[in-house]
Amino acid sequence: MDIKPYMHTLGQQARAASRVIAAASSEAKNSALLAIADALNNNREHVLSANTTDVENGRSNGLDAALIDRLELNDARIDAMIEGLHQVATLPDPIGEITDLTKRPSGIELGKMRVPLGVVGIIYESRPNVTIDAASLCLKSGNATILRGGSEAILSNQAIADCIKQGLTATGLPEAIVQVIETTDREAVGELITMSEFVDVIVPRGGKSLIERISREARVPVIKHLDGICHVYIDDKADLEMAFNIAFNAKTHRYGVCNAMETLLVAEGIATDILPRLAKAYDAEGVELRGCEKTRQLIPSDIECIAATEDDWNTEYLAPILSIKVVADIDEAIAHIARYSSQHTEAIVTNDEARGRRFMTEVDSSSVMVNASTRFADGFEYGLGAEIGISTDKIHARGPVGLEGLTSQKWIVFGHGEIRQ
Amino acid sequence: MDIKPYMHTLGQQARAASRVIAAASSEAKNSALLAIADALNNNREHVLSANTTDVENGRSNGLDAALIDRLELNDARIDAMIEGLHQVATLPDPIGEITDLTKRPSGIELGKMRVPLGVVGIIYESRPNVTIDAASLCLKSGNATILRGGSEAILSNQAIADCIKQGLTATGLPEAIVQVIETTDREAVGELITMSEFVDVIVPRGGKSLIERISREARVPVIKHLDGICHVYIDDKADLEMAFNIAFNAKTHRYGVCNAMETLLVAEGIATDILPRLAKAYDAEGVELRGCEKTRQLIPSDIECIAATEDDWNTEYLAPILSIKVVADIDEAIAHIARYSSQHTEAIVTNDEARGRRFMTEVDSSSVMVNASTRFADGFEYGLGAEIGISTDKIHARGPVGLEGLTSQKWIVFGHGEIRQ
Repeated sequence: MDIKPYMHTLGQQARAASRVIAAASSEAKNSALLAIADALNNNREHVLSANTTDVENGRSNGLDAALIDRLELNDARIDAMIEGLHQVATLPDPIGEITDLTKRPSGIELGKMRVPLGVVGIIYESRPNVTIDAASLCLKSGNATILRGGSEAILSNQAIADCIKQGLTATGLPEAIVQVIETTDREAVGELITMSEFVDVIVPRGGKSLIERISREARVPVIKHLDGICHVYIDDKADLEMAFNIAFNAKTHRYGVCNAMETLLVAEGIATDILPRLAKAYDAEGVELRGCEKTRQLIPSDIECIAATEDDWNTEYLAPILSIKVVADIDEAIAHIARYSSQHTEAIVTNDEARGRRFMTEVDSSSVMVNASTRFADGFEYGLGAEIGISTDKIHARGPVGLEGLTSQKWIVFGHGEIRQ
Repeated sequence: MDIKPYMHTLGQQARAASRVIAAASSEAKNSALLAIADALNNNREHVLSANTTDVENGRSNGLDAALIDRLELNDARIDAMIEGLHQVATLPDPIGEITDLTKRPSGIELGKMRVPLGVVGIIYESRPNVTIDAASLCLKSGNATILRGGSEAILSNQAIADCIKQGLTATGLPEAIVQVIETTDREAVGELITMSEFVDVIVPRGGKSLIERISREARVPVIKHLDGICHVYIDDKADLEMAFNIAFNAKTHRYGVCNAMETLLVAEGIATDILPRLAKAYDAEGVELRGCEKTRQLIPSDIECIAATEDDWNTEYLAPILSIKVVADIDEAIAHIARYSSQHTEAIVTNDEARGRRFMTEVDSSSVMVNASTRFADGFEYGLGAEIGISTDKIHARGPVGLEGLTSQKWIVFGHGEIRQ
């Protein structure tokens, strides 16, 4: 296959289809989502059999168990995709909303109208359910989309794409609103992220190395989520019980998630009171501790705590490992965060309102919390209804990205014949 | 000079200074703006003498008269810069504003706080007043900035930079909040637009070729304004008088501006009634006409109208030239705009409300107008108070970009000890 003309054809088709879906009514978009859900339900065997082949190929290519688990579909996972489609159909439609209407001295009435971005390219790894997830959010927000899943899921993704096409056709919408790239050639990704005449934004979903490569090579804007090196700072004016609960929850509720705490900062004045108790609780959960010198002196000698290195402050463990640093005060905490945080989510525990406000103002992360667990930084917890990702950028969308992050606003002017004087 | 370490030093200093200005009060920022205005007033001779040398060098290097005019400063232009600083000081401060506060089922209170982007890099051409303009908008929006003006204005910009430093120092703020690059080496631009660890966004101000080059090579997000190929569509249900006034104003009010009309689309059903009269008016103003076949048949034979080519529909003239096309109806008008517009500003003239709404919904431009001149697409006319540029992108900022376009929002969470269940 000749990749460049193939991708340009996809791009042209997406651009044309984007105009149709941008102007589609909420009813048409919701009908399409439900029709896709029906098609998925009626074609379970087709999807599962394609997936079985993917899994078999993956096994013979030596994919590890975790990857096979992410790749594998079953009836429950298809049910979850169908349920997801129904949920997206019930979300409010952001498109067409008019806000900020004002009358200007010239007489014109000015406002803003929410509009789709146009064509969204999504690049992801082995989980085939992302195909439905991403397609449904883009469709609801009035965008056309070009999807590129992991090569090991190619047959599953094509089978799911067939269901999406059926659903779109049944609703009278063009198939090209959702297109799945049909080649596993890596050159296709290179084209997708550079054909800025056809693609308005790229959303990569996957590991840090994938996202770094895409950011480096893209000529199209990227909404990206790099890493989550999240901090909790326990101030010396914290409530001890609250501090214990938040610091314990932020680390141990789930380990492999981007909003889990990776570094705990503790004010010197409260460290003796809270660190030994926390260390015991972490140790009982099997969390490995890595601490600064003061931390290691305060932690009971029967609990292992190795010396933290510069690397530790810079690492997103995504694992039951925690680095701990005792700091003099909120100044040192904010300075440490400014230096090492990935600007995802940070929390302070304090009963001092002024310090809470200062932390909230001065810490430059996509979510900043006072007296709550970092684990709340999540599209569902924030009430977005769905999440295409969490952005660690400051441009366009910051933090959890829902339907609104897939839209823009244009200026609209209602005149009565006004001309510039 | 070794460019790479020099630029990295500027970047590091800007990053550190950005934390100070991000946390500065409105009063401190406004005092700094007024102190810079005072320094400029007190150092007129220093600035004017540096500018004289720039102008002399420019003349001996053969700069054309238009460029010399843009480069040259005088007391009136310095007064205008001082007045601009006072105006920016009176604008409302966007930073710290908290919106969208809601209580979530978990108990946390969620909101959004407006924050600066961090470090803004601005690349511009020969006009030295942009140095003050850009610096003041970035300062007011809590950003540090690194400025790179045209090489022909290097001494003027350094003299202005001295005034800015004086003003910052007098207010007790770090000098590095505003830094002017002190070398004319082009490699410095290459560093500025790729050092994403120190720079959060690039705003290029200048001609299309400058902006295209920067967009192509940047590794930092760019808020860019490419071109303004703006259309007015006169519907067959338009008021004739209103249509005449808007089409005349949109073309002839000013020629060299991005929101001037470059192509006029006229519905077939009204073309006989309006085109001859409009053609006469344009001709009397010295506007050169280039039309489709039907246009040329309708225009009185004593007025020259050459045949428009494909190139004409794709050209931003920025000059007294207009291309005209007779279209069957609103469908053909929207299709022409989708194909040729630069997505800057388009207007429809119609008394049919449904067609007005359809045009507004389906035309994908940063400003879409019903019954008003495209010339209104402007930060001051829109009430932004100031304008750093007009964005033809859809990501982050679209259309006229004021202070808000130099900011982002972070999520803030007020908790009471909540943890994830």
